[in-house]
Amino acid sequence: MYFSRQDILNLDHKKRLNMINSLSGIKSANLIGTINQTGQTNVAIFNSLIHIGSNPPLIGFIMRPSAEVRRHTFENIIASNQFSVNHVNSDILQNAHYTSAKFSADKSEFNECKLTEEYAYNFNAPFVKESSIKIGATLEEVIHIKSNDTRLIIGKIQHLVIPSTFISEKGYLNLEEAKSIGVGGLNTYYQLKKIATFPYARLTELPFFG
Amino acid sequence: MYFSRQDILNLDHKKRLNMINSLSGIKSANLIGTINQTGQTNVAIFNSLIHIGSNPPLIGFIMRPSAEVRRHTFENIIASNQFSVNHVNSDILQNAHYTSAKFSADKSEFNECKLTEEYAYNFNAPFVKESSIKIGATLEEVIHIKSNDTRLIIGKIQHLVIPSTFISEKGYLNLEEAKSIGVGGLNTYYQLKKIATFPYARLTELPFFG
Repeated sequence: MYFSRQDILNLDHKKRLNMINSLSGIKSANLIGTINQTGQTNVAIFNSLIHIGSNPPLIGFIMRPSAEVRRHTFENIIASNQFSVNHVNSDILQNAHYTSAKFSADKSEFNECKLTEEYAYNFNAPFVKESSIKIGATLEEVIHIKSNDTRLIIGKIQHLVIPSTFISEKGYLNLEEAKSIGVGGLNTYYQLKKIATFPYARLTELPFFG
Repeated sequence: MYFSRQDILNLDHKKRLNMINSLSGIKSANLIGTINQTGQTNVAIFNSLIHIGSNPPLIGFIMRPSAEVRRHTFENIIASNQFSVNHVNSDILQNAHYTSAKFSADKSEFNECKLTEEYAYNFNAPFVKESSIKIGATLEEVIHIKSNDTRLIIGKIQHLVIPSTFISEKGYLNLEEAKSIGVGGLNTYYQLKKIATFPYARLTELPFFG
């Protein structure tokens, strides 16, 4: 089925939102934990986490101006300079999804969605105890995306927790064993099944393509 | 297992590369197709595609300065103002992976990796025929990320091809049926299995968290 730009713009608002959000393919589901200066915590699901670089170790995510709930996340990051990133796994999938409800600023999604705050490593932002892969990051850069007035938030990785059973000798994480979850669009969740690992692609070692 | 920032920096270079690349969780595997002014085509696998916004419909991806092969992609985009994004599916996974080998600029990965160029909709950049979900985009914005000298390339969606069987009435794409592939780190590939769809999270319709 073909859609021109005009066909897309003519779609019903919600259908366009769902379709275009699905287009980039599978995304990673993560809970971002923050705290403000009065000690009020916040945790919210994000599906826009991206790898920015490994040296220095940097991660990023996209922040929409319209995302009211998630704005608490942004305000807290600006105020505290810190945030935690916690992989959503299948055991906490429903809890994680509902952190996107518009709780008022004086309520913590930790409490409302039955997730547990965890503090460690002299890091102020709360980690999510139920998550097995956790990152503690400090704010490195906020980039304004003019095209649609969104922001790319970049954090420098300061702390990392990964159960050793999920890390291979070469450093690969097994996302299937970690029960990490993928998201399609805004609300469709996928389990991951590892099907192949290929070596670094060298011209001298190409397979035969029939 | 805990890693401080210093522990991460002390890791063997390759292990750090693999581990940090895996940290952001599952990523979408896509082939980006381009053409230069002499008609030389290029197609390369990218695992950094991100949804930027649905109105206007925008997608983006991260370009590393060190990625030699993919630099042809960047040069072609700057010269032609266009690129195609094509979901990797399980039928073309190995072909797609090996587009990352460092073929010289006068060779097309389409030919070397047995993928088929497809031209349609008066769009100059080649689509990948074997891919079922395809996007034709024009260059909208190139954003420099100071933190590590990478670039975020943003494209405006002009053309879209999705088999209608994969689109629900509400506009959701079924990535499992589309056989779309996820990537962990640099070279571990995952199949997607749909496990849940939750409604938009409303305060008045929260489930009970026991």
